Amino acid sequence: MGITLQQAQLAVQAAHEKAQQMGVKMNIAVVDSGANLVAFIRMDDAWLGSLDISIKKAKTARFFDMPTGAIGGLSQPGGSLYNIEHSNGGLITFPGGIPLKNREGQIFGAIGVSGSTVEDDHAVAEAGVQALSGQ
Amino acid sequence: MGITLQQAQLAVQAAHEKAQQMGVKMNIAVVDSGANLVAFIRMDDAWLGSLDISIKKAKTARFFDMPTGAIGGLSQPGGSLYNIEHSNGGLITFPGGIPLKNREGQIFGAIGVSGSTVEDDHAVAEAGVQALSGQ
Amino acid sequence: MGITLQQAQLAVQAAHEKAQQMGVKMNIAVVDSGANLVAFIRMDDAWLGSLDISIKKAKTARFFDMPTGAIGGLSQPGGSLYNIEHSNGGLITFPGGIPLKNREGQIFGAIGVSGSTVEDDHAVAEAGVQALSGQ
Amino acid sequence: MGITLQQAQLAVQAAHEKAQQMGVKMNIAVVDSGANLVAFIRMDDAWLGSLDISIKKAKTARFFDMPTGAIGGLSQPGGSLYNIEHSNGGLITFPGGIPLKNREGQIFGAIGVSGSTVEDDHAVAEAGVQALSGQ
Repeated sequence: MGITLQQAQLAVQAAHEKAQQMGVKMNIAVVDSGANLVAFIRMDDAWLGSLDISIKKAKTARFFDMPTGAIGGLSQPGGSLYNIEHSNGGLITFPGGIPLKNREGQIFGAIGVSGSTVEDDHAVAEAGVQALSGQ
Repeated sequence: MGITLQQAQLAVQAAHEKAQQMGVKMNIAVVDSGANLVAFIRMDDAWLGSLDISIKKAKTARFFDMPTGAIGGLSQPGGSLYNIEHSNGGLITFPGGIPLKNREGQIFGAIGVSGSTVEDDHAVAEAGVQALSGQ
Repeated sequence: MGITLQQAQLAVQAAHEKAQQMGVKMNIAVVDSGANLVAFIRMDDAWLGSLDISIKKAKTARFFDMPTGAIGGLSQPGGSLYNIEHSNGGLITFPGGIPLKNREGQIFGAIGVSGSTVEDDHAVAEAGVQALSGQ
Repeated sequence: MGITLQQAQLAVQAAHEKAQQMGVKMNIAVVDSGANLVAFIRMDDAWLGSLDISIKKAKTARFFDMPTGAIGGLSQPGGSLYNIEHSNGGLITFPGGIPLKNREGQIFGAIGVSGSTVEDDHAVAEAGVQALSGQ
């Protein structure tokens, strides 16, 4: 089953609340299993440049079914996937994108967050992931 | 003042409810005064191709501060703005995009809707506009 | 269920055989429910420019869950969807793209064919559709 | 002579079988001497992001008539071809793309494979190359 809008909004809402608790301003995007956008919000005064980054993080996480940071570890100079970012119209390979799974454990989408440090971005994305565990 | 996320979500929510009442499946996008995305949802089973169209309608409405259909009237063969759709990375100039105004009557964003007939798209976008009147 | 590679190849093969029977040289593309390519062939000496067109036809048919020609009827000057082709990185709205359905009748992909007249293109695509009916 | 569809499909089929033996899920693309796609398959559940990468690997291998990994060795920081990936709409320069030769030993196309480690990608591409040796 693909992710529903209701599930996508649940993930976005949980990530939004986490961002508010942390006092950070985020762009939050959720894509479906086809890597197409389902839901998006940009918090007031969040970095404008993070809009595209959050969507690219979500797409990247679904494109390879792994957290974006895992790809970034391999795409460094000398790494096995150096400059993979040039594919697919532009990837973002630092942390902040995580696959989303349904209750059967199958990946059915991904969330991407951008607007603060990559640690903060990942933590906010993780809140979205947690909101769907068991859904 | 630019549109806030809360206001954008209010417009999206009103448009979403209108679409549900009408029994249509829509992509709904809201952009700010800079024509950058603030909030977006794609309803379950809505046309995938309408994702991009809804965002382009919202951008187009803000780019020229008028409903998208008004531009489409001028972009026809022989019209004064023939093929204006080639600009700005692609415009959509049929109905479904409408500027959003704050309580002072200033345009501070726009909404774009796609997923059904252009009449339905416009009606759903109008519901989003109405939700913000007086905000 | 999304279309499998085996099903996509079955559709491509049937379309290929139809094209050979008709004596036309085609590009044949199949996309999945997310409008992403699953299988593609270009027959010897087929028009090179039809490569991109066949893929865009398949994508367009899935983007709106209807034969591409149906969209083309609405995108003409004065039509309700005039210049919709500027969306989604470029649509192709003349005949030759048709949605593919699984045995439950749900759309799970699309086929796009280009290389001859639009009538021929549609006929070859239809052969691919028929090959999957009952699958 | 350029590569024929029959030859391209032979290479794709051999690579597909090799991938099945190895238990990996691959995207497999073959381009002709003009670096234009001739045949493509995406195996079930293969990474979606590898679709574009497999095609870019095939193009890159033909663009420079060498295995993609050889270019990657020169495109590193400080290397003679630093960031060559920015050309041609995006190159992929890690292993998985290999030129294809006809029986006279002339390059008449290339194969690109993506979906696993770069070592696996290269091994599967090599199976495609071998299938055409002597053709």
